Amino acid sequence: MADKETKKLWGGRFAESMDALCERMNASIDVDRALYREDIEGSKAHARMLAAIGVLTDEELAAILKGLDEIRAEIERGELAFRAELEDIHMHIEARLTEKIGEAGKKLHTARSRNDQVATDFRLHLRRRMQGIVEEIRGLQRALVAQAERWAEAVMPGFTHLQVAQPVTFGFHLLAYVEMLDRDAGRMEDAIRRMNECPLGAAALAGTTFAIDREMTARELGFARPCRNAMDAVSARDFVLEFLAAGAIHAVHLSRLAEELVLWTSPFFGFVELPDRFCTGSSIMPQKKNPDIPELARGKTGGVIGALVAMLALMKALPLAYNKDMQEDKAHALRVLDELEMLVPAFASIIAGMKPNPARMRKAAEEGFATATDLAEMLVRKGVPFREAHEVVGKAVAWCVAHDKRLEELPAEVAQSLHPKLSPAMIAQLSVERAVAARRHLGGTAPEEVRRQCAFWKQKLGMED
Amino acid sequence: MADKETKKLWGGRFAESMDALCERMNASIDVDRALYREDIEGSKAHARMLAAIGVLTDEELAAILKGLDEIRAEIERGELAFRAELEDIHMHIEARLTEKIGEAGKKLHTARSRNDQVATDFRLHLRRRMQGIVEEIRGLQRALVAQAERWAEAVMPGFTHLQVAQPVTFGFHLLAYVEMLDRDAGRMEDAIRRMNECPLGAAALAGTTFAIDREMTARELGFARPCRNAMDAVSARDFVLEFLAAGAIHAVHLSRLAEELVLWTSPFFGFVELPDRFCTGSSIMPQKKNPDIPELARGKTGGVIGALVAMLALMKALPLAYNKDMQEDKAHALRVLDELEMLVPAFASIIAGMKPNPARMRKAAEEGFATATDLAEMLVRKGVPFREAHEVVGKAVAWCVAHDKRLEELPAEVAQSLHPKLSPAMIAQLSVERAVAARRHLGGTAPEEVRRQCAFWKQKLGMED
Amino acid sequence: MADKETKKLWGGRFAESMDALCERMNASIDVDRALYREDIEGSKAHARMLAAIGVLTDEELAAILKGLDEIRAEIERGELAFRAELEDIHMHIEARLTEKIGEAGKKLHTARSRNDQVATDFRLHLRRRMQGIVEEIRGLQRALVAQAERWAEAVMPGFTHLQVAQPVTFGFHLLAYVEMLDRDAGRMEDAIRRMNECPLGAAALAGTTFAIDREMTARELGFARPCRNAMDAVSARDFVLEFLAAGAIHAVHLSRLAEELVLWTSPFFGFVELPDRFCTGSSIMPQKKNPDIPELARGKTGGVIGALVAMLALMKALPLAYNKDMQEDKAHALRVLDELEMLVPAFASIIAGMKPNPARMRKAAEEGFATATDLAEMLVRKGVPFREAHEVVGKAVAWCVAHDKRLEELPAEVAQSLHPKLSPAMIAQLSVERAVAARRHLGGTAPEEVRRQCAFWKQKLGMED
Amino acid sequence: MADKETKKLWGGRFAESMDALCERMNASIDVDRALYREDIEGSKAHARMLAAIGVLTDEELAAILKGLDEIRAEIERGELAFRAELEDIHMHIEARLTEKIGEAGKKLHTARSRNDQVATDFRLHLRRRMQGIVEEIRGLQRALVAQAERWAEAVMPGFTHLQVAQPVTFGFHLLAYVEMLDRDAGRMEDAIRRMNECPLGAAALAGTTFAIDREMTARELGFARPCRNAMDAVSARDFVLEFLAAGAIHAVHLSRLAEELVLWTSPFFGFVELPDRFCTGSSIMPQKKNPDIPELARGKTGGVIGALVAMLALMKALPLAYNKDMQEDKAHALRVLDELEMLVPAFASIIAGMKPNPARMRKAAEEGFATATDLAEMLVRKGVPFREAHEVVGKAVAWCVAHDKRLEELPAEVAQSLHPKLSPAMIAQLSVERAVAARRHLGGTAPEEVRRQCAFWKQKLGMED
Repeated sequence: MADKETKKLWGGRFAESMDALCERMNASIDVDRALYREDIEGSKAHARMLAAIGVLTDEELAAILKGLDEIRAEIERGELAFRAELEDIHMHIEARLTEKIGEAGKKLHTARSRNDQVATDFRLHLRRRMQGIVEEIRGLQRALVAQAERWAEAVMPGFTHLQVAQPVTFGFHLLAYVEMLDRDAGRMEDAIRRMNECPLGAAALAGTTFAIDREMTARELGFARPCRNAMDAVSARDFVLEFLAAGAIHAVHLSRLAEELVLWTSPFFGFVELPDRFCTGSSIMPQKKNPDIPELARGKTGGVIGALVAMLALMKALPLAYNKDMQEDKAHALRVLDELEMLVPAFASIIAGMKPNPARMRKAAEEGFATATDLAEMLVRKGVPFREAHEVVGKAVAWCVAHDKRLEELPAEVAQSLHPKLSPAMIAQLSVERAVAARRHLGGTAPEEVRRQCAFWKQKLGMED
Repeated sequence: MADKETKKLWGGRFAESMDALCERMNASIDVDRALYREDIEGSKAHARMLAAIGVLTDEELAAILKGLDEIRAEIERGELAFRAELEDIHMHIEARLTEKIGEAGKKLHTARSRNDQVATDFRLHLRRRMQGIVEEIRGLQRALVAQAERWAEAVMPGFTHLQVAQPVTFGFHLLAYVEMLDRDAGRMEDAIRRMNECPLGAAALAGTTFAIDREMTARELGFARPCRNAMDAVSARDFVLEFLAAGAIHAVHLSRLAEELVLWTSPFFGFVELPDRFCTGSSIMPQKKNPDIPELARGKTGGVIGALVAMLALMKALPLAYNKDMQEDKAHALRVLDELEMLVPAFASIIAGMKPNPARMRKAAEEGFATATDLAEMLVRKGVPFREAHEVVGKAVAWCVAHDKRLEELPAEVAQSLHPKLSPAMIAQLSVERAVAARRHLGGTAPEEVRRQCAFWKQKLGMED
Repeated sequence: MADKETKKLWGGRFAESMDALCERMNASIDVDRALYREDIEGSKAHARMLAAIGVLTDEELAAILKGLDEIRAEIERGELAFRAELEDIHMHIEARLTEKIGEAGKKLHTARSRNDQVATDFRLHLRRRMQGIVEEIRGLQRALVAQAERWAEAVMPGFTHLQVAQPVTFGFHLLAYVEMLDRDAGRMEDAIRRMNECPLGAAALAGTTFAIDREMTARELGFARPCRNAMDAVSARDFVLEFLAAGAIHAVHLSRLAEELVLWTSPFFGFVELPDRFCTGSSIMPQKKNPDIPELARGKTGGVIGALVAMLALMKALPLAYNKDMQEDKAHALRVLDELEMLVPAFASIIAGMKPNPARMRKAAEEGFATATDLAEMLVRKGVPFREAHEVVGKAVAWCVAHDKRLEELPAEVAQSLHPKLSPAMIAQLSVERAVAARRHLGGTAPEEVRRQCAFWKQKLGMED
Repeated sequence: MADKETKKLWGGRFAESMDALCERMNASIDVDRALYREDIEGSKAHARMLAAIGVLTDEELAAILKGLDEIRAEIERGELAFRAELEDIHMHIEARLTEKIGEAGKKLHTARSRNDQVATDFRLHLRRRMQGIVEEIRGLQRALVAQAERWAEAVMPGFTHLQVAQPVTFGFHLLAYVEMLDRDAGRMEDAIRRMNECPLGAAALAGTTFAIDREMTARELGFARPCRNAMDAVSARDFVLEFLAAGAIHAVHLSRLAEELVLWTSPFFGFVELPDRFCTGSSIMPQKKNPDIPELARGKTGGVIGALVAMLALMKALPLAYNKDMQEDKAHALRVLDELEMLVPAFASIIAGMKPNPARMRKAAEEGFATATDLAEMLVRKGVPFREAHEVVGKAVAWCVAHDKRLEELPAEVAQSLHPKLSPAMIAQLSVERAVAARRHLGGTAPEEVRRQCAFWKQKLGMED
């Protein structure tokens, strides 16, 4: 074909054009078009550097910069047609640039390769969106802290093994997630910091014969420094793996919160109601109001774990340097970015909008002998060794179960028969409010400690009082 | 909004419309539109059954069938607009049907729920496409058998630990994959057979108060029988897991073949050349010709494993019956279907098109002392216990390594010094051709046995001779 | 060292002995000693075949068989010392045999390699233990069917999205698991059938120069046939992957049942009590009784999924034939065998021992407007299109929620205002018993259908009546 | 049983003793005995704090401290019998303590629970061993840097897609791993820092009614601070997940290095020889010398990925606070610790011991037209736009392939016909040494830059010069 428009930019040595099915498999444009912004940003920095070292003239540089800006605008207006034959976003932009500005466009790829180009684009892209996710996590923390402060005194049952364990406050429970999310954000920030080195100039894998200025491009693109070793720069994808790992751990935390929301909104718990706008109904059952968003969050967590596994398995046995397998990295990472960018703000809205039912919570806290530990600890204060006190109260509970009584209703004579120091006065002191109030040390569930923790977080998260 | 067009079909009890972000998260139409054909097929069978039991009149049935056929045509012409507010393919089709035919459309959902509907659609969809994948696997087997027969005598080194082990024939090596693929196809077929039960009529989870005829719908849709228990029918997704597991194992086999193609086409092996149409070049290095398709296959295998993990993690702790988490099942399965539908025929083309280099293979087979085992086995025939023979030949190899000789060049006096029965005549008999020819028992690498295996497969795979 | 006891059986060509740390990494004896029985069984079959083709004399065969039986007894009495230097179970047994019977022992390894030997041992071992797991699954099915029959009439709420959906019977709910388990057993049986081909005689990868009789060894070891291709026989591990995949899907089903047991035994559900013998207490909270075994089952499911992923990732990019990476396969598979052999019978005991609380279940079924679908279906029978009926009942539910009424308490005038056909007579008919009884078609939740399903299963599972 | 020795410490309320199979499933002592040191360390800190706040007398404290030290010695001498009935390491130590010192032993568990105790033990244990792994990683980096410096000038082919790309130096290639490992160590260090908060005092989930001093125990145990929220302290396991994720990424890097060692030692590469002490032989093939340790490293990487997946799946949908599922965390983490503690030093030995073959490397670098990019870059310096230069050189390579020539042998007339600026002088300048020397910018492969990088690392890693 004389005027084949879509000649491969690498086609010099090839005698045969590509098999259609393979071309479709090979093309990554459906995925990597998401990187167009960073690709243009990176090309502009590269062009400025090429001009600074004399490879491009000022006129060529000007034409390239103008052309690239126009192409960005074209893409954002949806005017650039994407075609599998042009493989990827780099080739699309370069081909369009040459179409627009001629010879100068053909010079842009001097002293670089798609290998360092895509590594640069991808780090820039991840960096930008991960910073956004950190912001969203901060927003979710704020929503949790606000609710925690509002419900610092609301007593609910604390669970272990989904059995009632000890009374806690709802505020205290919510703050546990604030802690987890803080570590999640920290992991994202550590990953950003570690990936913030510039691969540009590594070229295919070994650097280039041009006397490039890698410090300059790194600086222009906001990287902390250039990658120290060119082969590492194009071969490594631990920056993707670390993002996916941080994302998976974060998703697990969201999934745990989701699991609790599903439980709390189920009719036999009834601790929380979600506003209609976060729920859906059933096509057959007219009464249904389902906590879809938390359920989807749990489900999507599976997908995030899967993306991490996909990338670990993919990278596991690849020799250096670049291998085409690595092209799949973007599909996995972009999907996770998309999911987290939906999930985290959705949770912030849900937490801000949820309506706790403190009466149901308090009533539930009175079931399940939640104050049994307190009774044992009272005995300890009377000099009974803890292990013996535990045994005595265990027997008291067994009596209550057999006689369908609450612990507060344990008859004095039964108490006395179990242990001489187990007095009616002790039994009379048992209450879920006293139980939570007594746990006032650092990290305890007492309302005053919850308020102290809230104050800490409000300051740290920049929440006005 | 007075005349809100996109009223939820389940909205009776809801006071508030859906949060926009949540609506976007909740909608599955971008994914499940792929099921439109099966959704219409299932609705037609359901409608016929409703008419048969008197819930629909003949006129209503006729209107529904005609309407559904028209909607299918509209979808295939790209005329039906998909909107997140209508959530999924079921709602889109039902809403459009009611728009077209009025009251009768509102009756179609009698005695069913989206829970049994989607389970039915999805099984039909998987069944159809898995059958297609089995056909593609058969095609790949045929391509392998054809090459195996052509190269039944071509000697190459057989490897263990990527070290030269013993000479084999290229045909023999390719037939190993024919075996693996046969089991892969068998796993797909077993999965199809096991999932071939009809969920329709399970309704939300418990069946319905209408006297439905589930045998009839099962028969109409080509299922072997109805699911025996309604709750199982809507709750279980092991049919998806089994497909993904079969797909992952198959992908691992493709990935191993891909790994070998990458090795065989690397310059230091040079056993095989791939036609240009399966390769790509480099944007910086003019000489490069890269085996992209095999590399992508390896990479995409990671994605298939990831999809399996995603679904296992998702289902792991879900109580019965339907939970919204399960909506994600289609995204994972459809992605794997898409990948396998590309990968398997791409491999068939590559195998059919690859050009072995028998001279390089044979030369390589002579390196690495590939006939050492044969020498030990000759000693055994002279009455030396195998373990002793192994030791003797091991020392002969060590001598050759130290003196940079091939085993065929072992001097007679050295041989004699190692073992009196190690004769020059034995050494003279060593050759890679003799080595392969001697392994002529069932399953061995001898050309005659390879031809026998090829004949078996040609008959089984319906290949004309 | 003159009398080095632990000389490697492969050490002929080596100048240097093994690094101690590497020897520890390399040794698999801690894991593969589990295969001792099958290793001996396989060696006996191999020896008989070698005698049949004249490689061993009758005397040598007799000595080998006797020696192997003695070694088995020694191992079972704990008398054989295992040492890392002897690497694996094969080397331990061969070395001990030679120690016991001299020369003849050194002949046993003629015409085989550890590659085909371990593949044979491992298939035999998996086959035996997987058959045991199938038996355990049948036992769990029996326990479920027995409880299902006992509680065929016990009404409980059926859930979707953990919200009350429609009333079901407890028997019906349990039978859903019987179905899942049946497919699980089927997957195990398919995997056993597919792996039931004998690798022995494949030797290192290409067969052997001896005229071995592979049909004979296959028959002796109870395999359906020899593997057709020697390279496949030693290279493939899809038999392990298929077992792990079947195990992971089965574990997911157990995990779902475990999740339900945790919910059902939690105080706000209270549907089921577990006997003390399946529970543990708390070291601090005297009242706790925790459903540990179901929780451990959920947790161990993670490990089974992890083992599958480990093996998929391990095999993903291995060229043929044997690579040392594959040695890890046994650690993963044996761990999963151990776990399933504990989990499945533990569930059978728990199911047999659990004590449902039908009163709490029934009461719970009356919450959550579980009969709303039935009301809509009554309207349909009066000629109201289902979609309209759904909307009307949805509004009725919304009215009840706002006025804190149950659906059975909907005032006549409200009903009439919602739809003229919504009559007090209809409302009066609503009951959870009627709801379940009405779903009497194939697969429905009605007691009579549950009993029919139980009869089917009792016959299939060989349960006396 | 009147004098049942193994009475559960939590058994007060229980009427029935534990099912034997369940007891075996429930017991974690086989795994968590590994934590004995940290359990004793934690108990001593807890006891000191209890004395400081007046819960224990000085005499009781002294008895407890002495008793615990004795128990540690007993365990280390193998004198403490471990029994499934005593469940876990905490119970074993407490029971033995009470046996030794009586009443005071029963007081030790005051104000704590196994929930905070195990979280504390596990963090201490992980912290200690992860610090050890970081040290081992530093050792492996040193081994790599030493070899990199030695081979800073050794030219080898750099690969992309396992095709020859451009010449690089072996030193440069090894330094790529030094970079990856540095980030691996950084991830471990970040994880240690993030987990370094003390859970002790969180008790079951809510804190305790005693006025404990959590700052004191945190300080005693070397933690940076106490966990801020008690429920988070006992519920979260992201510290385990983060370790496993860091371990998995690190293992992937080791696996890539292993993959390269397997390739480099294969006969057709022959770049590197491994000393015998890292290799094994074959039971059948006398000549084999297999790179077992690298292969095992690849294989074990699968297990590390699997452990991560196991824990992610396990935690994914657990409500707060402690659930028994979480007991499995230690099995997964300890297995990964064991593996990494073997793998990393094994790699350090292998890297230190490997013997490169610079002649084979250099020869290989001359194949595959590795200097084609340099030729294109020369044309660029003559004013040819890069894209055009790439095309011209591509055609030159195609000519060479067709005529079986090396690029250095391109005839002048062919060169001229391809482009007027493609001069014989340029062709004459092509050499692999010039190619590497020219890439002397930051991060390039030139020997002088490799030496500069080595100097950087030697200083950072504290290597004497």
